[in-house]
Amino acid sequence: MSQFDGSRVLITGGLGFIGANLARRLVGQGAEVTLVDSLIPEYGGNLENIAGIADRVKLNISDVRDEHSLRYLVQGQDYLFNLAGQTSHLDSMHDPFTDLEINARAQLSILETCRLENPNIRIVFAGTRQVYGKPDYLPVDEKHPLRPVDVNGVNKMAGEWYHILYNNVYNIKTTVLRLTNTYGPCMRIKDARQTFVGVWIRQLLQGDSIEVWGGAQLRDFTYIDDCLDAMMLAATHDNATGQIFNLGGREVISLEDLALLLTEEHGSGRFQRKEFPADRQRIDIGDYYADDRLIREQLGWEPQVSLRDGLRRTIDYYRERLDSYV
Amino acid sequence: MSQFDGSRVLITGGLGFIGANLARRLVGQGAEVTLVDSLIPEYGGNLENIAGIADRVKLNISDVRDEHSLRYLVQGQDYLFNLAGQTSHLDSMHDPFTDLEINARAQLSILETCRLENPNIRIVFAGTRQVYGKPDYLPVDEKHPLRPVDVNGVNKMAGEWYHILYNNVYNIKTTVLRLTNTYGPCMRIKDARQTFVGVWIRQLLQGDSIEVWGGAQLRDFTYIDDCLDAMMLAATHDNATGQIFNLGGREVISLEDLALLLTEEHGSGRFQRKEFPADRQRIDIGDYYADDRLIREQLGWEPQVSLRDGLRRTIDYYRERLDSYV
Repeated sequence: MSQFDGSRVLITGGLGFIGANLARRLVGQGAEVTLVDSLIPEYGGNLENIAGIADRVKLNISDVRDEHSLRYLVQGQDYLFNLAGQTSHLDSMHDPFTDLEINARAQLSILETCRLENPNIRIVFAGTRQVYGKPDYLPVDEKHPLRPVDVNGVNKMAGEWYHILYNNVYNIKTTVLRLTNTYGPCMRIKDARQTFVGVWIRQLLQGDSIEVWGGAQLRDFTYIDDCLDAMMLAATHDNATGQIFNLGGREVISLEDLALLLTEEHGSGRFQRKEFPADRQRIDIGDYYADDRLIREQLGWEPQVSLRDGLRRTIDYYRERLDSYV
Repeated sequence: MSQFDGSRVLITGGLGFIGANLARRLVGQGAEVTLVDSLIPEYGGNLENIAGIADRVKLNISDVRDEHSLRYLVQGQDYLFNLAGQTSHLDSMHDPFTDLEINARAQLSILETCRLENPNIRIVFAGTRQVYGKPDYLPVDEKHPLRPVDVNGVNKMAGEWYHILYNNVYNIKTTVLRLTNTYGPCMRIKDARQTFVGVWIRQLLQGDSIEVWGGAQLRDFTYIDDCLDAMMLAATHDNATGQIFNLGGREVISLEDLALLLTEEHGSGRFQRKEFPADRQRIDIGDYYADDRLIREQLGWEPQVSLRDGLRRTIDYYRERLDSYV
């Protein structure tokens, strides 16, 4: 991936789970990386995520809603990995306007800014499977109807379509990846705002029982390194421009079996099934797993890390650094 | 339709094309009607539209972005016909944020307000076929993928999904109608911001040549009275809650044949085909006509007015009142 050597890369949400891992990978490949992050405590940004590379990246603390900041920052960049977002489904129901401002309005603003200041920039946007809502069929391919079940899903749907639109109308090269459950080192584990897997690992490492809501629901998972592969392919492959790709994983597993696998990899631990709370039940989507053949065929993406390996690496990471994440 | 006798009805965009016609129909049925309109000169509101019923409706000049105003106005209403919107596709590209504020954010705000102040209100939202983008197949049914081709389409898509979401999550009864080209008395004819049919009728009545961009594109049309039938069925029929319905019309016609029909009904006039300007070409969708069987089957809707009759009535209306609309 020498395309990134010497290139200038901007990452929104750059102190977050995916952004920081991507920064680490890209500085290793010789890229000049600028991270934008708001460090809002409820979101994914954490300075610990760039430990060891902090002096090799430029860090700019600002919010994607700050159009003045972004106007300066996009200038001269070759790539924009546009990862900042409000990720909590429940928060989007309690405070729908903040979710709209970040996931929809700021995305439009970033694209307008790129159109005006840097139309040759290459953009990869982190979308979400949440836009599909409750699946009509499994696995879910990109042709599945979009029927979001929460405010976050509606706003993320708008955000991704602005990206496609600016590609089609203004020839700004954009790609949307619809992520499923991405997990690995640097994810938020304080609470379930980013992913429930983080909470489970915290419960495991703190000696608490893992709380499994429901348990029979099927899900797929992408290990962070495989997600980074997809991001970098999307940014550089000619087949990717103007496209929307699902990401999936190597395995489909029930939540209960995932909890079991975690306890096995940790060497100890326990879990208990619990009833869904009412506010989650209303926006739950049941089983979901992706048909990700399109990105495999078009970009040659192939997830490398098994769920067992990925979970072990993740547990190992947090075992060493639990205090920095709780 | 005696359900509306004595009922309290709020109409956003109430001085606009559809809103004012609906108000006229509803006061005739004994409803207590409040109109909300911003009277922004570029939009559809026009006091002439309520000539003769102005003393039988309550008129409240405010913008749907004014959440304070709406918070008061929704209280005690039985029905909300939520029709206010920015309708110009081109304006949405030149000023995407205004379009977002009106077509997305204000919709979310209205729904939040209803949830808090009047959760038993019955809401009908005016959506648009624009959310489908360039059709994969014809006629386009409600299962067609959503792939908006302009900012207006993205924001209207978000606006309609907020409505469905608030139905599904909060049990606020909402229905979305995806309108196609609606035409008739009271539509904006000053420019093409609302519908090109209005401009054509103005050109015809002013003795100018009708400018037909392209000409071969197929379209369907809904006469205003048929649209009102659909709105009122959607507001009162149990099968309508939480649903999205396409509206279509009785005929599918090319733009060139439509221009010809107009000159026939007017008794004179001429038209000329012109090349698409570049900024319109980029967001054009080609042929479109709706499969509207779902609303016919579920709600018993049946458009009554032929295109020829509808155009004649429309020309007659503007012939008498051209000065009030240009």
